[in-house]
Amino acid sequence: MRTIIIGGVAAGMSAATRLRRLDEQREIIVFERGEYVSFANCGLPYYIGGVVPERSALLLQTPGTLRARFDLDVRVLHEVTSIDPIAHTVTVTSLRTGDVYVEHYDELVLAAGAESSPGLDLGDVPTRDLRTIPDVDAIMATLGQLETPSDLHAVVIGAGFIGLEAAENLRRRGAHVTLIQRSAQIFAPLDSEMTAPILRELRDAGIGVRTRTTVAKGARGHVELSDGSMIRADLVVTAGGVRPATSLARGAGLRLGPTGGIEVDAHQRTSDPSVWAVGDGVEKIDHVSGEATLVTMAGLANRHGRAAADDIAAHRAHPAAPALGTAIIGMFGATAASIGWNERRLRASGRAHRVIHSHPMSHAGYYPGAQQMSMKLLVDPTSDKILGAQIVGRDGVDKRMDVISVAMSAGITASGLSRLELSYAPQYGSAKDPINLLGYIAENHATGTAVSVQWHELSEALAAGAHLVDVRSHDEYAAGAIPGAVNIPLDELRARHTELPDRPIIVHCQVGQRGHTAARLLSQLGYEVRNLDGGWLTWSHGTESAPEADTTPRRAS
Amino acid sequence: MRTIIIGGVAAGMSAATRLRRLDEQREIIVFERGEYVSFANCGLPYYIGGVVPERSALLLQTPGTLRARFDLDVRVLHEVTSIDPIAHTVTVTSLRTGDVYVEHYDELVLAAGAESSPGLDLGDVPTRDLRTIPDVDAIMATLGQLETPSDLHAVVIGAGFIGLEAAENLRRRGAHVTLIQRSAQIFAPLDSEMTAPILRELRDAGIGVRTRTTVAKGARGHVELSDGSMIRADLVVTAGGVRPATSLARGAGLRLGPTGGIEVDAHQRTSDPSVWAVGDGVEKIDHVSGEATLVTMAGLANRHGRAAADDIAAHRAHPAAPALGTAIIGMFGATAASIGWNERRLRASGRAHRVIHSHPMSHAGYYPGAQQMSMKLLVDPTSDKILGAQIVGRDGVDKRMDVISVAMSAGITASGLSRLELSYAPQYGSAKDPINLLGYIAENHATGTAVSVQWHELSEALAAGAHLVDVRSHDEYAAGAIPGAVNIPLDELRARHTELPDRPIIVHCQVGQRGHTAARLLSQLGYEVRNLDGGWLTWSHGTESAPEADTTPRRAS
Repeated sequence: MRTIIIGGVAAGMSAATRLRRLDEQREIIVFERGEYVSFANCGLPYYIGGVVPERSALLLQTPGTLRARFDLDVRVLHEVTSIDPIAHTVTVTSLRTGDVYVEHYDELVLAAGAESSPGLDLGDVPTRDLRTIPDVDAIMATLGQLETPSDLHAVVIGAGFIGLEAAENLRRRGAHVTLIQRSAQIFAPLDSEMTAPILRELRDAGIGVRTRTTVAKGARGHVELSDGSMIRADLVVTAGGVRPATSLARGAGLRLGPTGGIEVDAHQRTSDPSVWAVGDGVEKIDHVSGEATLVTMAGLANRHGRAAADDIAAHRAHPAAPALGTAIIGMFGATAASIGWNERRLRASGRAHRVIHSHPMSHAGYYPGAQQMSMKLLVDPTSDKILGAQIVGRDGVDKRMDVISVAMSAGITASGLSRLELSYAPQYGSAKDPINLLGYIAENHATGTAVSVQWHELSEALAAGAHLVDVRSHDEYAAGAIPGAVNIPLDELRARHTELPDRPIIVHCQVGQRGHTAARLLSQLGYEVRNLDGGWLTWSHGTESAPEADTTPRRAS
Repeated sequence: MRTIIIGGVAAGMSAATRLRRLDEQREIIVFERGEYVSFANCGLPYYIGGVVPERSALLLQTPGTLRARFDLDVRVLHEVTSIDPIAHTVTVTSLRTGDVYVEHYDELVLAAGAESSPGLDLGDVPTRDLRTIPDVDAIMATLGQLETPSDLHAVVIGAGFIGLEAAENLRRRGAHVTLIQRSAQIFAPLDSEMTAPILRELRDAGIGVRTRTTVAKGARGHVELSDGSMIRADLVVTAGGVRPATSLARGAGLRLGPTGGIEVDAHQRTSDPSVWAVGDGVEKIDHVSGEATLVTMAGLANRHGRAAADDIAAHRAHPAAPALGTAIIGMFGATAASIGWNERRLRASGRAHRVIHSHPMSHAGYYPGAQQMSMKLLVDPTSDKILGAQIVGRDGVDKRMDVISVAMSAGITASGLSRLELSYAPQYGSAKDPINLLGYIAENHATGTAVSVQWHELSEALAAGAHLVDVRSHDEYAAGAIPGAVNIPLDELRARHTELPDRPIIVHCQVGQRGHTAARLLSQLGYEVRNLDGGWLTWSHGTESAPEADTTPRRAS
């Protein structure tokens, strides 16, 4: 039996090594178009930044080590140009010699990944993706041509994962960096108000951000943007979206799905029973909608590669779990993570949802080093199921996102987060962990014990006659308040509530917690009251990062 | 309506504040025997160590702040001496004035916590618990009497959570510290082999550890141990076990459970329908056995306090979830966490279990700062349910324990850990996260794809004729090997397997992963082969921390 695997990075190599562990006798050939297999593609930006100092650290395996340990026949610089699904053959070109030959397979695994949009022609301005070892070598060569890297002016196109990581790491090298984003908002996995800490991080690092613009053309060390402005550019890194690489699959007549990715069953088998497909080129099932989706994450690629090997070796394999799209990024010590659907997507699809913001500390406030996080939870108001979440902060973000990921995959409700028994000592969390608090807030909403108004609904509510009460301290109010807010500190509210007018009341505090206590108090005294969700901080993030979404004028903070 | 709450720390104060938020009209009285309410009891050791520099940081609330914000009538230094459940009254003594009075209640919440065993009489050697603000004040006073704290010789009795934290923090102050443990092993939540990194941490910090001994008596700056030896002791901190404080409950005729704790229903109500009980004095339901248990964790205390308030206010409350016993401790930057049942307890109860050890890196190895963890998973071999877990390491331990906690509470199987979609970027984890790898190992065991031998079974297996093959590199083997092991590096095994005798084979590597590949290879070539679970590292930890459990002589490492 011979299994041929096309593509030798994450998904393909997971399939190959697992298949060998299950079947010592099978012949396994891996064709990789590039020069390198099994390299650390998620580490590439960090080599540019010098965080990963040695290039060799990115090269996890070579054809030689894979032969010795797993008896794999790995052929780099070999491009499969076509598949004949009837004859069970692939046609291969050696990119080194130009030789063309045909190999027979019993089973075929397609792990060709995703590809970027057609390259930009920016004249003589060096322009590279940041997806392969040769990309990195080219960028490093450009950096190396300069006396000092801080002379370099770099433009990064696309403020998604790779774009942000590229910008961060070019900046670490000292380069002047401008980040260009076509849409109004950077980092699409987050909703706009959640990007405020990231925007601040970019600004503090001295990285320029230009949204609602594209690069039109380039020449002689500059690029021209779609708004006509010119930016100096010794190097352009393209990090726009990717799409499934499906030309081989289409040529072989494999069925593609509605997303344009290769359609597979729950065991990664394509419409051809002898062909499996895994990785970024393949459709996944979306956890929230149950429909086909594209998620290009290394974890899924590895898992599905392994699952394909299980299926090929007739090993009892569990069907693929729906994809949550769990994702995380670091930016100069800040961390942003997301999962599931964001509010923008839920609104666009007309799906009912409840929004919760909170801003807890990463661990007990009295223990040194606690850092504030901003959390957002999206909840189905009928089922109380978690539809998505976003967390931005520094320490402790990854942990909370992973907890939410497990909760979502297990169907734990938003209120159920309150009952999770998480590890607590003051340097790691709080007796009521931020996750438990999210659960309590969700439960209060589900039972009507809390009623909130969102930051982007505030202007309209005030225009309709609501009275805004800031229940923070006098000092906090003086340091910066929402226009129109009257200050009655929470601890005075029980005595002073008679000062309130006979109008709907909106209370707010800094992060939402005192506001909740105030709302409970006033509600039981007969007031119609709502709490500004996430308090001053969410409102401030929202109006700061997306001023068009709320026209409330802001006072200095 | 009047609700009386006895005990004003975690559970009691959670009940009081939640009850106020649900019911503005009710009269709420909190009696606290001590001088302080709502203090950070988990932070006390860190104030001794100077990690938390300000005493005021431990005092989260005062009767005054609680009156202002929550209209609570908090009476500190007031001891409830008896409950009359027929008359619905409590008898109270003011510890300040000696006045005795009676108060009526409509509902009563008992949050009296746990108490330590009767105090040791060590003559003129100052001896304190470390459970209250006055305890901390007394310890700090003893430290303050010395010219420099490094003159202090401290003895800590009990190597559990508080004992280890006390030892760490006294050492931080510069004191000479000896930790005394009655049983053979420190830190009972872990199995012996998992304590090896903690023992090393204590040794590196210069803390003496004496197991299998107790303090017999004390006088003139010394204590005498049960083995007759004398240790200098200017201060003794007692941190032995605690038991539920139930004298009030017993006096009121409330039903106690088999553990000696107060019996409550799923809404924290005792056998008296007007009395609720919460916190460390109360029985919980054990997640693994479904039986009554005692778990003294702040998170559960807070949650159950809140749940009691919900029930009293007739607020729709979810029944209490079974307790997992999730726990974590930090020691000079090392972290140890545990959940569920350990192997010792499973063996003692005769419950079938499968054991998995692994030693993954906290994040991608090529990204700087990755640190090795030691993980242990205990699995029900029939249902594949997770029975317990232990993790020791530095970075990333708390995150993985919380993931396992959510998985256990949701009933995700051990194999199911492989399908969790955790957040991955190289500074946070790995594309195959350590949690996913545990799942893959569990799945390999469940399907028979992996067969292992435990570190403590090795001697017997070798005595019975098994042949031990070390598949690590020549250099690793030379640096320290298990006696009797023959070295055939994994990458040479396919060519050299004919050197193996016709006997059962045990393979091992450093942590278990290469051993698995070797076992798969040999198994398919017809050998009867097992992989040493957790590799050299688990064997080394086991024989180092519990030499009596394995009599295999060790070579220098």
